[in-house]
Amino acid sequence: AHPVFSELPETVFETMSRLARQYGAINLGQGFPDGQGPDDVRAAAARALEQVSNQYPPMMGLPSLRTAIAAHYRHHQGLDLDPEREVMVTSGATEALAGALMALVRPGDEVVLFEPMYDAYLPLVRRAGGVPRFVTLRPPHFRIEETALAEVFSERTRIVLLNNPLNPSATVFAREDLALLSHFCRRFDAVAICDEVWEHVVFDGRPHVPLLGLPGMRERTVKIGSAGKIFSLTGWKVGFVMACEPLMRILSRAHQFLTFTTPPNLQEAVAYGLSKDDAYFTGMRAELGRSRDRLAAGLSGLGFTVMPSAGTYFLTVDIAGFGLDDTAFCERIVRERGVAAIPVSAFYERGDVTNLVRFCFAKTDATLDAAVARLGDVF
Amino acid sequence: AHPVFSELPETVFETMSRLARQYGAINLGQGFPDGQGPDDVRAAAARALEQVSNQYPPMMGLPSLRTAIAAHYRHHQGLDLDPEREVMVTSGATEALAGALMALVRPGDEVVLFEPMYDAYLPLVRRAGGVPRFVTLRPPHFRIEETALAEVFSERTRIVLLNNPLNPSATVFAREDLALLSHFCRRFDAVAICDEVWEHVVFDGRPHVPLLGLPGMRERTVKIGSAGKIFSLTGWKVGFVMACEPLMRILSRAHQFLTFTTPPNLQEAVAYGLSKDDAYFTGMRAELGRSRDRLAAGLSGLGFTVMPSAGTYFLTVDIAGFGLDDTAFCERIVRERGVAAIPVSAFYERGDVTNLVRFCFAKTDATLDAAVARLGDVF
Ligand SMILES: CSCCC(=O)C(=O)O
Ligand SMILES: CSCCC(=O)C(=O)O
Repeated sequence: AHPVFSELPETVFETMSRLARQYGAINLGQGFPDGQGPDDVRAAAARALEQVSNQYPPMMGLPSLRTAIAAHYRHHQGLDLDPEREVMVTSGATEALAGALMALVRPGDEVVLFEPMYDAYLPLVRRAGGVPRFVTLRPPHFRIEETALAEVFSERTRIVLLNNPLNPSATVFAREDLALLSHFCRRFDAVAICDEVWEHVVFDGRPHVPLLGLPGMRERTVKIGSAGKIFSLTGWKVGFVMACEPLMRILSRAHQFLTFTTPPNLQEAVAYGLSKDDAYFTGMRAELGRSRDRLAAGLSGLGFTVMPSAGTYFLTVDIAGFGLDDTAFCERIVRERGVAAIPVSAFYERGDVTNLVRFCFAKTDATLDAAVARLGDVF
Repeated sequence: AHPVFSELPETVFETMSRLARQYGAINLGQGFPDGQGPDDVRAAAARALEQVSNQYPPMMGLPSLRTAIAAHYRHHQGLDLDPEREVMVTSGATEALAGALMALVRPGDEVVLFEPMYDAYLPLVRRAGGVPRFVTLRPPHFRIEETALAEVFSERTRIVLLNNPLNPSATVFAREDLALLSHFCRRFDAVAICDEVWEHVVFDGRPHVPLLGLPGMRERTVKIGSAGKIFSLTGWKVGFVMACEPLMRILSRAHQFLTFTTPPNLQEAVAYGLSKDDAYFTGMRAELGRSRDRLAAGLSGLGFTVMPSAGTYFLTVDIAGFGLDDTAFCERIVRERGVAAIPVSAFYERGDVTNLVRFCFAKTDATLDAAVARLGDVF
């Protein structure tokens, strides 16, 4: 037997970003914006280096940030969270996810996963000793269907891990799909870990429905959020976890031994940012929506079939007509055309989906246009 | 069966800091200095918020920081590390430790631990599926002894986890003790994880001997360091891991799914700080040494038996004469006298040591004097 991690490849996001650096490519692979985030939030972080303590903050997070998180989700999503007992700050959503799985999965517990899925999910479930049960969501609508749930849920189900909005398919789940899932969670007494890092990045007026807010889910949902995604500062690694007190108590025990805490100056700046007015969030969505449309138009113009994108930083294109699978396609465009993208097969464990490639559109118009021009030269 | 973390108490460091906040106590519990670290390092962090990207840095860490880490350890400890392949940046030493255990321990592997031990070690070993084997180090010298090692090492030993300098006993292990341990590691083909976060905090001219530098240990040692401890900025949560390439490959697979990366502006500032000249490190040690002596004198004056402290931020006192065990003593002084300390029994799984209390002396003279005055009122 080998340790879980010794058998793993490098995460596809790092591999493609490394190739992008190596070949001087425009990086539309790993999901990060090409700006520097809001000036005032960065300025708040600089100020806090002087004005708040740089020593260990409370393990659960700065009180100012926990209060801001609770107020933020009350205002934006109608959630009623106690900042002292139901909110925790983590070193990014990745730590939140790893911690939740390490805290809640007992060896042998079944964990329901939805394909396509972020590449950290399965290794973390395995490392926690969980037994994965897969639901494959099908294009073009990626609906959650009752028959699929009925196949995988059982008395052995302990955890359900969902990403909503869903990376990479850019699906924003409808309330009825989530209600169906919540019905199964309640019936089989499962805890849902809902990775909602893209919650603010939804387009065309579509609402984000937090799973934790659904009837009967308050006591069985761990909600994960990300300041990096909300403020286009992906390197900051400030994440949030929300859950009822009995779950939070266990989650905090894992957190205290995974990272213990998160830099206080960045926490303070995020607290500042979360209280921005609605215009910031509406503006961010509108701007990203325009970028999505711009890249979609550019790629369509090159003959790609562009799939719909309802949220996230991403859109996927069908490359079936190009005579290469997604991995070969991505390797070729990064090396030969100087554009990095992500092969969607990296999000599947069982599926045989090899015809989709993901592009990140959270970039300036100039970056997007340059990428389309580079791609246009070859295809 | 319950998940490991659901059975755990809150870490003693958080509990005591919470009580300190609650009772307005002087906090000599959790190990952090009461200053704000070096002004120039904080200024470098503020500058980097503007001058380096705030998006995802490379998963292994900024090249500038990895280069600075390799140069730092070459200069200070004579280690020869390849910054590209043998150095990784983590979100604090806690993440480094959790990641190393998750990466290297297979369920059923035996892990040798030394009591007294930091309270994260055992839960992480258990969560990774490891089977702990304990060596109890005995006061006053806390020597590593051959008979004790011979009792626990076997063909099933996979990992040895050592903290050097040792918190809370403030022991700096002698080269011959480490050589003895290295002999057992080689003989039983074990990997050593050496938590050396206190490596720069050694007193009275005593050298810190990195385990990785001992004959035969280069290929089987994971060395963990901490910028928070080096620069008195414990909230920053920038840690380092050093190991040979085959081990590092596995460690990076765990890191990529535990936190993925660490805030780039803080990484850049730490890169700047690591190249400070010897005077900074000598000065820090001298200043902390004086603080140690000041607190030791103050506590001795109150009638406490003060144990020797060769390194770390800590000294321990024997409270056997006070008619309370260490936990009761600490609860009483935080509530009644407004001074927080740590009961050393929290560092023991098997031992029946309940007569030692740890105080952190990494504080200004005024803070130390005030704490002694407060304690003096009661005893
Ligand atoms: C941690 S790197 C991955 C970032 C991301 O969310 C993505 O590109 O899908
Ligand atoms: C992560 S809080 C503990 C800090 C520390 O090293 C100690 O107090 O022993």
